[in-house]
Amino acid sequence: MIKQFQTLLKQNHLDYYLIPTDDDHASEYVGDYYNFRAFLSHFTGSAGTLLVGKDQAYLWTDGRYFLQASKQLKDVQLMKSGEAGVPTLQTFLKENANKDMVLGYNGEVCSHALIDSIKTYIQTKDIDLTDEIWTSRPERSHQPVYLYDEKYHGQGTADKLHLIQDKMKALECDCHVITALDDIAWLFNIRGSDIDCTPVALAFAVIEPAQAHLFLQSGTYNQVLIDYFKKINVSIHSYNEIYHHLVNYKKVLLDTSKVNERIYQSIKGDIVDQMNPSQLLKAVKNEIEIKNTMQCHKKDGVAMLRFMIDLKHRDFNALNEMDIVHMIYHYRSLQPEFKDISFDTIAGNNENGAIIHYHPTNEQHKDLEEGLLLIDSGGQYLDGTTDITRMYALGHITDEMRYYSTIVLKGWLALMNARWLEGITCESLDLLARSPMYALGLNYNHGTGHGVGHFLGVHEGPQTIRYRFTGSQHPVMLKPGMVVTDEPGLYFENKFGIRWENELLCVPYKETEYGHFYQFKPLTVVPIDLEAIDCSLLNDTERQQLNQYHQYVFDTLKDAVSKEELAYLKAYTKAI
Amino acid sequence: MIKQFQTLLKQNHLDYYLIPTDDDHASEYVGDYYNFRAFLSHFTGSAGTLLVGKDQAYLWTDGRYFLQASKQLKDVQLMKSGEAGVPTLQTFLKENANKDMVLGYNGEVCSHALIDSIKTYIQTKDIDLTDEIWTSRPERSHQPVYLYDEKYHGQGTADKLHLIQDKMKALECDCHVITALDDIAWLFNIRGSDIDCTPVALAFAVIEPAQAHLFLQSGTYNQVLIDYFKKINVSIHSYNEIYHHLVNYKKVLLDTSKVNERIYQSIKGDIVDQMNPSQLLKAVKNEIEIKNTMQCHKKDGVAMLRFMIDLKHRDFNALNEMDIVHMIYHYRSLQPEFKDISFDTIAGNNENGAIIHYHPTNEQHKDLEEGLLLIDSGGQYLDGTTDITRMYALGHITDEMRYYSTIVLKGWLALMNARWLEGITCESLDLLARSPMYALGLNYNHGTGHGVGHFLGVHEGPQTIRYRFTGSQHPVMLKPGMVVTDEPGLYFENKFGIRWENELLCVPYKETEYGHFYQFKPLTVVPIDLEAIDCSLLNDTERQQLNQYHQYVFDTLKDAVSKEELAYLKAYTKAI
Repeated sequence: MIKQFQTLLKQNHLDYYLIPTDDDHASEYVGDYYNFRAFLSHFTGSAGTLLVGKDQAYLWTDGRYFLQASKQLKDVQLMKSGEAGVPTLQTFLKENANKDMVLGYNGEVCSHALIDSIKTYIQTKDIDLTDEIWTSRPERSHQPVYLYDEKYHGQGTADKLHLIQDKMKALECDCHVITALDDIAWLFNIRGSDIDCTPVALAFAVIEPAQAHLFLQSGTYNQVLIDYFKKINVSIHSYNEIYHHLVNYKKVLLDTSKVNERIYQSIKGDIVDQMNPSQLLKAVKNEIEIKNTMQCHKKDGVAMLRFMIDLKHRDFNALNEMDIVHMIYHYRSLQPEFKDISFDTIAGNNENGAIIHYHPTNEQHKDLEEGLLLIDSGGQYLDGTTDITRMYALGHITDEMRYYSTIVLKGWLALMNARWLEGITCESLDLLARSPMYALGLNYNHGTGHGVGHFLGVHEGPQTIRYRFTGSQHPVMLKPGMVVTDEPGLYFENKFGIRWENELLCVPYKETEYGHFYQFKPLTVVPIDLEAIDCSLLNDTERQQLNQYHQYVFDTLKDAVSKEELAYLKAYTKAI
Repeated sequence: MIKQFQTLLKQNHLDYYLIPTDDDHASEYVGDYYNFRAFLSHFTGSAGTLLVGKDQAYLWTDGRYFLQASKQLKDVQLMKSGEAGVPTLQTFLKENANKDMVLGYNGEVCSHALIDSIKTYIQTKDIDLTDEIWTSRPERSHQPVYLYDEKYHGQGTADKLHLIQDKMKALECDCHVITALDDIAWLFNIRGSDIDCTPVALAFAVIEPAQAHLFLQSGTYNQVLIDYFKKINVSIHSYNEIYHHLVNYKKVLLDTSKVNERIYQSIKGDIVDQMNPSQLLKAVKNEIEIKNTMQCHKKDGVAMLRFMIDLKHRDFNALNEMDIVHMIYHYRSLQPEFKDISFDTIAGNNENGAIIHYHPTNEQHKDLEEGLLLIDSGGQYLDGTTDITRMYALGHITDEMRYYSTIVLKGWLALMNARWLEGITCESLDLLARSPMYALGLNYNHGTGHGVGHFLGVHEGPQTIRYRFTGSQHPVMLKPGMVVTDEPGLYFENKFGIRWENELLCVPYKETEYGHFYQFKPLTVVPIDLEAIDCSLLNDTERQQLNQYHQYVFDTLKDAVSKEELAYLKAYTKAI
């Protein structure tokens, strides 16, 4: 395919063509319609940037995919991102291109930030060549868009729009463009199914001081939806119209780090470059959302308890990792209001647990063997989104496994029990989770926590818990109503991996003369497998914290399970 | 005095005159020569900014001095900084001045930052009226400047200058001006006694690519010093020459946050505004400095042990706070190489311990009574600078005192035992010290830690341990060789105050595949009065940490004390 595409390149007088893995919305996951990169390169991983030159082609991807990419790529050179001596895309262009050359790209699926980062090295041209060569291109997903019931979200669109419009007024903007699908879903209280595991619809939104425009794919909405929005001054337009709609605005509020290049170029007015106001508003859950989320986690906890009872009764030697994926799905799917999983279930036995982004597939998985089973999974329910990681002991586990599993648990407990004064940064909280690892000269190469949407994306900003100061931006402080995960880990290549993960809700703790103090309330109510840890390694404070959590799990779930299950719940959550 | 000065104002066609409490060097403490503000206003506190208008005058000072200032001020209105409804100096000028008015100031003792912050509200004019009215002005301190022995500092001036000159070369600067007295003392390996408790000489320095200029008060140095500097291309000039010396440089490296306005205005070339390179170089102590510092802390530990034995044997009812100050001075002064105290000794019994900046004076102190005694003190030795805070139980102390004293100790232990990965910010470490207070909805309104000089200022940057993100600057990361204090506290107005303080040295802990891990080594070796805490409140980890520290104190001091003292040392540091 690369060779044919190179012919097309030359016909269009282009020196390079750039194909990232993105949709019009900078979504974390993209549908098949957008996977032109996989079509051309034969590499099917979820992340990668393809650069096609006249005679050669290059694909940048990260450590997760080095092996897979080296097997699948055809006529494309693998660029191992982050490896010593491997240039970034930008450095590569700096060294191999000049301002007489032209790089083509499809502005709908290239972020403004990406194009901006290469413009000093080469001329760029927005030209979409996808359909000329990808004749078997799948249809773009166009699932029905539906109104999300107020009993789940608790705040009408008119209300939310006013908050955004107030912010626009303060900034003197006559327009605010939103391209992030989760922000649009939250603001307009709509949901859809155009992205795997994330209940959003492909859409754009434009807010004006006294009205708003929603851009949806034709055929995805009905008259009820049109009428509903008409009443609150929201008009529906067809999806692609966004690319012609923005010409006349004078001052546009826009998060340029997320917008695609074609939309960016279509704006003729001034740009006020800020994070979408909806991001912070969405991150602070309201009372109705919190009530629903707790209900949702209770159901998720029951499902995980049933899974645990089932797992502990079975002969693990007769199971494989995909069986685990199916079991988890089975128990979740029996819960009311369950709609989907919230991401591909990670079920990694021993060495597979050490691969951070591993998830078993029908083609590639292993039969379970004695040792540790790491399960990172979650559900999409109408009343919330869950994300949980638990370790399970299969048969006899080694002292080493038990040791490190307990070390990670210490960090997990410390963060869950944090209490702090308003205004401290997320880096501060991060240290609580990493301290036990630091004490051993160990670390984990991922963040400690991320936000979680409300029946939306399982990864949601802007809050995070990370250990490095990012420098460029003012840090986002945690506020009551925000949800974050607490997921420290340790990974020993070819041996085993550990991660414990709860979702936590930031809540007020105390208000004193010193200010507002906050703490976390655990949302996740799933027992810790005591066979997977060594309680003698916990100090008395940590023992108390674990017992307290288990008591909370027991109290929360006790009315939702059968008598027989209750006995197991009691045993799993017994005080140590 | 204000009235007479207002007449002078009018004669000079000035609407306002601004008198901060500063010297030519933005020093933390200033000599009597510089206290024009006290002369005019009658207020003698260590901090305050006086603004004299044609008919009225205003003094801004902070909470420490509200009472004192309200008693002492004459013809001056007190502006309580930080209180609700009290404008800042800048806001005051915004509201009460305009661009037709002129504000006079003495550019030698006004920082560029201060003058810059008011220029939008009023015209400014550098005009020194001090000597016209202050006829009884004391002489400026001009103590002898001496060379600091290499056995204490370990790195010659030529070496240090090369490091600065390399940095200048990288920035293409032909000049670097240093006005900070501690940076100059470090760079030129000189010491003096022009500032109380801080062994620095009043001086300026100008570095060029191949030579340097040192500006000293005439009569403060001898031929030996001239000859010594001549050999390494450093020429000596008279102190005030700095104000005429800078005209011809093209590109000047300068920390504009510290420079006075007159020097700033005398520069005609471009300014590269950066933190003095000497600041970071000075902060990372070399091996010789570290060896000396440890030696110095050992002597300080012996002095504090002897003080503790003495205190515990006396009838505290027969002592007052000034007796404590003298006792501490006595034991320190007996140690070899002792030169001075490093700041005014804070000895606060019960309610006086709750006043963060309290220090007893001959005029104002109290007789000791049963309860807690907070002592924050330190020494200047040729081989180092110390800063220690300890709590002592006098007779029977209440459960409440013991409780909070132990809470603070928990935070103190947690920070001292921190281990972390290179690259985390100082805010992260701060949380370790504050967590036990946060858990009770409490806090302390001061930083957790500051750097300490090497026979230099007891407060030294750029590293700090603080809990709020400052936003404006990239944070300074702790590095091996840096010294910081660990001094959490709790203060209960009119009742008692608690603070525990050690100096800590940042040292490498481990280097693993995850990077460089660091930890602290305590420099301070002074027992914790076990009668002042409640050991039953410590968890097993904390008990272990306290025992470990006490064992370290014992091991370090055991060879330096008499047989009789050893028995006390053993008892004071016994395992709990």
